[in-house]
Amino acid sequence: MQDDRSVTVLRLGHRPGRDDRMTTHVGLTARALGADEVIFPANATDALETTRDVTERFGGPFEARPTDSPVGDVRGWDGPVVHLTMYGEPVQERVGTIQAESVGQDLLVVVGSEKVPFDVYEAADWNVGVTNQPHSEVAALAVFLDRYFDGRELDRTFENAERRVVPTALGKEVTEPTDSEPE
Amino acid sequence: MQDDRSVTVLRLGHRPGRDDRMTTHVGLTARALGADEVIFPANATDALETTRDVTERFGGPFEARPTDSPVGDVRGWDGPVVHLTMYGEPVQERVGTIQAESVGQDLLVVVGSEKVPFDVYEAADWNVGVTNQPHSEVAALAVFLDRYFDGRELDRTFENAERRVVPTALGKEVTEPTDSEPE
Repeated sequence: MQDDRSVTVLRLGHRPGRDDRMTTHVGLTARALGADEVIFPANATDALETTRDVTERFGGPFEARPTDSPVGDVRGWDGPVVHLTMYGEPVQERVGTIQAESVGQDLLVVVGSEKVPFDVYEAADWNVGVTNQPHSEVAALAVFLDRYFDGRELDRTFENAERRVVPTALGKEVTEPTDSEPE
Repeated sequence: MQDDRSVTVLRLGHRPGRDDRMTTHVGLTARALGADEVIFPANATDALETTRDVTERFGGPFEARPTDSPVGDVRGWDGPVVHLTMYGEPVQERVGTIQAESVGQDLLVVVGSEKVPFDVYEAADWNVGVTNQPHSEVAALAVFLDRYFDGRELDRTFENAERRVVPTALGKEVTEPTDSEPE
């Protein structure tokens, strides 16, 4: 985001084939809803490629990079760490503290897939649940980011976009800012 | 929800195999974030089964049902219809109107997969974008529901749950309300 907050999303665990679309949606949701960067497990090559491709077409800045050691990255993170889990404390009760304690720092938001090692629960400064119901890591990430940024992420503009969607009540309108109108 | 709002989520389009997990996550997100019902295309048998199974274990009320004619259901819906699309108008500008105009009615929230027929754009009272960026129908649904219910859905309690997660700062705690403690 363009203020004093920097957010990286880390996807923990990825089973090629089965998780391709979920992991891709984690990356695209991170980008669309105000994060600066997403880190994928090294085997999530499809998600990495798609997220970079969308950034190329629809703008940034946004980084997507692989890691060989996701759990190691969580443990060694230089900044506060939130782990989103259905077992955690209510997001509505914790987000204010997280906002206050992460100003000027690099916040890491960890979203797991199936089984998350207990190490990650311990390494996190906050284990936070978007409800304590089983649903979707993508949904949890979306609600967390929207609340963390107090909705300001919805007004973010992306730079160097090859194409831009123009909001319309009915239909589809897409412009190509670089050759049709000033930024 | 337990107030004067009733929300049904309709998943439009489903490719068995490829979309199984996304469609399932649409259903589980609808349940967790305050909707009363989800309607799946008839070929989304996995998603239907998983959503019903989660409702059985973690409580309701929540209905999941199949339809042979998703587009027909949208056209014939007896109540206001929101279609979530990256081409639509900003959610932050439209949600107040949608809240006001759907009190006491059954709101239908339509989330597509790949290509949505133009009929659906026309049948919707509002075409709404959670950003105009490509990301995830699950993320868009989550942010829409959280804003539509003004966050009250996060405090919802589910009835007749066989198990219930107890929010904790570290670790996992699950109770079985029916034989261990009063509801």
